[in-house]
Amino acid sequence: MYGMIATWRMSVEGITKGREILKNKGCSGDAIESAIIEVENCEFYKSVGYGGLPNDEMEVELDAAYMDGTTFDIGAVGAIKDFANPIRIARHLSKEKVNNLLVAEGAEKFAHKEGFERKNMLTNRAKIHYYNRLKEIKEQDIKPYSGHDTVGMVCLDENGDMTAATSTSGLFMKKKGRVGDSPICGSGFYVDSKVGGASATGLGEDLMKGCISYEIVRLMKEGHSPQESCEIAVNNLDAELKERRGIAGDLSLIAMNNMGEWGVATNVEGFSFTVTTESQEPIVYITKKVNEKCIHEVASKEWLYNYMETRTAPLVRK
Amino acid sequence: MYGMIATWRMSVEGITKGREILKNKGCSGDAIESAIIEVENCEFYKSVGYGGLPNDEMEVELDAAYMDGTTFDIGAVGAIKDFANPIRIARHLSKEKVNNLLVAEGAEKFAHKEGFERKNMLTNRAKIHYYNRLKEIKEQDIKPYSGHDTVGMVCLDENGDMTAATSTSGLFMKKKGRVGDSPICGSGFYVDSKVGGASATGLGEDLMKGCISYEIVRLMKEGHSPQESCEIAVNNLDAELKERRGIAGDLSLIAMNNMGEWGVATNVEGFSFTVTTESQEPIVYITKKVNEKCIHEVASKEWLYNYMETRTAPLVRK
Repeated sequence: MYGMIATWRMSVEGITKGREILKNKGCSGDAIESAIIEVENCEFYKSVGYGGLPNDEMEVELDAAYMDGTTFDIGAVGAIKDFANPIRIARHLSKEKVNNLLVAEGAEKFAHKEGFERKNMLTNRAKIHYYNRLKEIKEQDIKPYSGHDTVGMVCLDENGDMTAATSTSGLFMKKKGRVGDSPICGSGFYVDSKVGGASATGLGEDLMKGCISYEIVRLMKEGHSPQESCEIAVNNLDAELKERRGIAGDLSLIAMNNMGEWGVATNVEGFSFTVTTESQEPIVYITKKVNEKCIHEVASKEWLYNYMETRTAPLVRK
Repeated sequence: MYGMIATWRMSVEGITKGREILKNKGCSGDAIESAIIEVENCEFYKSVGYGGLPNDEMEVELDAAYMDGTTFDIGAVGAIKDFANPIRIARHLSKEKVNNLLVAEGAEKFAHKEGFERKNMLTNRAKIHYYNRLKEIKEQDIKPYSGHDTVGMVCLDENGDMTAATSTSGLFMKKKGRVGDSPICGSGFYVDSKVGGASATGLGEDLMKGCISYEIVRLMKEGHSPQESCEIAVNNLDAELKERRGIAGDLSLIAMNNMGEWGVATNVEGFSFTVTTESQEPIVYITKKVNEKCIHEVASKEWLYNYMETRTAPLVRK
């Protein structure tokens, strides 16, 4: 059995590529890296890699992570600038004995020395978004933080080896040096080939408070299905946050166990995700919350069409 | 009931100060911040704050974190340079709505704007350690990484509010931008006032793989005593790492629950820690491993004397 699950519709091209690798007996690590690279390279996905939205200084700072569920090797970068594919650097770091999580200038120095591709990750489109947002903030007192769609994936190959990976530009208009949950083991991702893996998207600052990816894998280890594990973890953290803070940020989680069974839970409406298994070509689902349960519906052709239309529509500076 | 527990002998002056605050009805946050500052300010403690050992570029880059177990507010800095007290910045960040984890230049910009004290944290003593180590590496092929004594604390005040905090210069000779477990929620620290808190010291890269501070708090929530929780979590992670990787890095954990009961476990010999409660002045213990159990013995006067003698002894460049 092989399979992949990933956050958001934007992962579907990557998952399609990753599936080909798995189908041809490729390993989980190669499949997930290639899938994430696909998302990073698409300039129309404005929360990951090239075309990602900048921080409040108009710099695109990126977070990414890679975890091997068999060896527990972890590699991650935080607040890295001007490299084409943060996920490549994260995976490379996972092979180091120590210094596996590098941030900012230190991460850039490492990537430079190891020969990774430099690229100015700020697109004209992202600049227009930035200037428009600045104008909105001035005029309407809109909060600068919104838009934080991390791509997070879990992958199982035929050998039973599992991996998890993430990549994101983080909160739009974040402060320079802000690191979210994506490169944080246990919060943005966790995977154990003996059990399964999970990955998160949403408000990193809140996802961290529950070590929620670790918690989901732990629940699966206890015997819960991926779907139950996601729902328990998301509902618990959401309730704790509301009780203690009056409010809970967006929490959306995907998970797959080592039999290729998967689950998804969220505390927001309309969370989309992509799944594929050996017996199933990639499908995009959208999740509806009904009471404490999450119901997954296959995305309609219309929805899929509108998704790309919106993302690629001409953008005008206001 | 009030109480504090902290990693290593170096925390005893801080814990003594923190205890005074708790005794005078001060809050957990003030007590723990003041206790950590005391450790950061001591130039003879070469793994925390002023006098901390530098990275491989001879820069002192510091990690610190603060968590409020009642509100789940978290603030943390990673790889920050040239500020006197990283813990102050971390606690200040915990009051922000988002952007709670800042690293490197971004963290420094924030700290500058918020008016935190600048200080060159590299001491002459640390420079001698650096040059001597460089020489050793050349001559004997010694591995550059060793020495990673984080101060981690958990604190309970009379109101039942709990906090956790950490501060460290991380691995001696680490790469620029390397971030360890100390500013990572769930790995270096975790606290829930409804349950208790935990904090870690050891090899950050391995502590992360088990989200071990979160796991200990979770075990306490399930009903285990702090001592049982620490032993279960440390023994499990140690065993998993050895099975998957052939080797496990240093893992030492302290915990206290919301009744002031405490526990400690480690996979190394001679781990020292400091505890105080309402009924008990600060005591330094040393932990011995006997089978899977950890036995805590009060540090002898001779041991305590030798500790400071070693740390303050004149240091000569080789």
